[in-house]
Amino acid sequence: MKVLHRFISMTDLDHLRVVLVATRNPLNIGAAARAMSNFDVRRLRVVNPYDAAFREARSAVGASELLAKAEQYENVAEAVADCKLVVGTTAAKRRDLQHRLLRLDEGARTIKRQLKAGRVALLFGSERYGLSNEEMSHCHWVMRIPTREEHASMNLGQAVAVCLYELVRGKKAAPAKTALGKKDKAATSREVERLTQVLFEVLRVSGYVNPRAAAAEEKLRRLVRRMELNASDTEVWLGMLRQVAWKLGANEKNGG
Amino acid sequence: MKVLHRFISMTDLDHLRVVLVATRNPLNIGAAARAMSNFDVRRLRVVNPYDAAFREARSAVGASELLAKAEQYENVAEAVADCKLVVGTTAAKRRDLQHRLLRLDEGARTIKRQLKAGRVALLFGSERYGLSNEEMSHCHWVMRIPTREEHASMNLGQAVAVCLYELVRGKKAAPAKTALGKKDKAATSREVERLTQVLFEVLRVSGYVNPRAAAAEEKLRRLVRRMELNASDTEVWLGMLRQVAWKLGANEKNGG
Repeated sequence: MKVLHRFISMTDLDHLRVVLVATRNPLNIGAAARAMSNFDVRRLRVVNPYDAAFREARSAVGASELLAKAEQYENVAEAVADCKLVVGTTAAKRRDLQHRLLRLDEGARTIKRQLKAGRVALLFGSERYGLSNEEMSHCHWVMRIPTREEHASMNLGQAVAVCLYELVRGKKAAPAKTALGKKDKAATSREVERLTQVLFEVLRVSGYVNPRAAAAEEKLRRLVRRMELNASDTEVWLGMLRQVAWKLGANEKNGG
Repeated sequence: MKVLHRFISMTDLDHLRVVLVATRNPLNIGAAARAMSNFDVRRLRVVNPYDAAFREARSAVGASELLAKAEQYENVAEAVADCKLVVGTTAAKRRDLQHRLLRLDEGARTIKRQLKAGRVALLFGSERYGLSNEEMSHCHWVMRIPTREEHASMNLGQAVAVCLYELVRGKKAAPAKTALGKKDKAATSREVERLTQVLFEVLRVSGYVNPRAAAAEEKLRRLVRRMELNASDTEVWLGMLRQVAWKLGANEKNGG
């Protein structure tokens, strides 16, 4: 539990409001809804969308209910009225920016803390102009995704996806099993040595190694160890090589 | 620029290949191109796009040149041939997944290290089905964005944006040598695939595999990738197996 507390819980995310301001393309609203659903953020607010029919956006794949429940506002002030922290997003490093500008990962840390205490609004401006100075003035501070300066402006749906990813990232530690994989059940030295011997026999019969050259066997042993095989792969290799050995008419005692 | 330089260098990112496999909607290819340009990743490869006119996708805002320069391939093997590490992406926790599955942030750490040493391919499957087992079999391992299980499937352009963000975000990766050791000079996919083919031929002639069973080749491909061979060990294995193939009287074209 101690570890989990370091991350963000479902209840915390329920405090997050994604606020899309003056969005022009309804497909971008749908795409934002889909990303929200992917990352388990459910509360969408829209301010003055350009297209009144945005709720039918087909891009909200798997998130139509979330989109249908979006709350609509006429201005930013109303849309963020119940939030304790209001954070703007910006693409460019605007010269006229009056706010403190944080990198996304820095800002996300603060947002995660604040979500434990109350509602947080995350604002995204229009595709063409971003947030206006008036809209931005409702924000406590502003975040920026670290895109390159020469092409800073992201697609709106992609920007929402990246911001939400940064918020949920590291939420739950993956189970050890999926993370470790191949080395979980390492083969025993006995199995690896058996494999080495069958391989050596196959190579001897094929004329690849001279069995009297002791160094050849050592080189082969090191080669097989470097594969760092797990137990089941070792079994598969053994099966394959025994079949090859049989086909080559190798010695029963070594190859069998 | 300063921000990006602190983490991963431009030269490193120049080693990254984003590979879109069997993409249906050209707008998604354009959106991926835009995200790539935002995060300063320039090399796009497409395998069998559904729409041949994908280069005209309007969604590639600010990234039309990148899209125009995209390299087109007929299969995954060719698209990743010059890459030393091939990483797949998947949305769902597929039950039939044969690969080691890493969470995005874990996988990104390994990718960042490998980018210092050579080319890395990052594969994204089709919108409808993701990567097929055959396509996936060219991968060393697979990454998953931590979306919620009930709605795991992301929009393709958004998934690309999130993965690239994770790669440019955060702290500087450890130097390749100390962290990786055995993978320092990883084999290219072309070499590993050549090894796979010779091994397959040896096993076919030995009667271990039925060449008509497509799954057999995929299983073998995964088995060989799991060895994570370095370049010189790959050479040794190729030499050994070619000798065995010759002894078995295998086909020159496959075994030679």
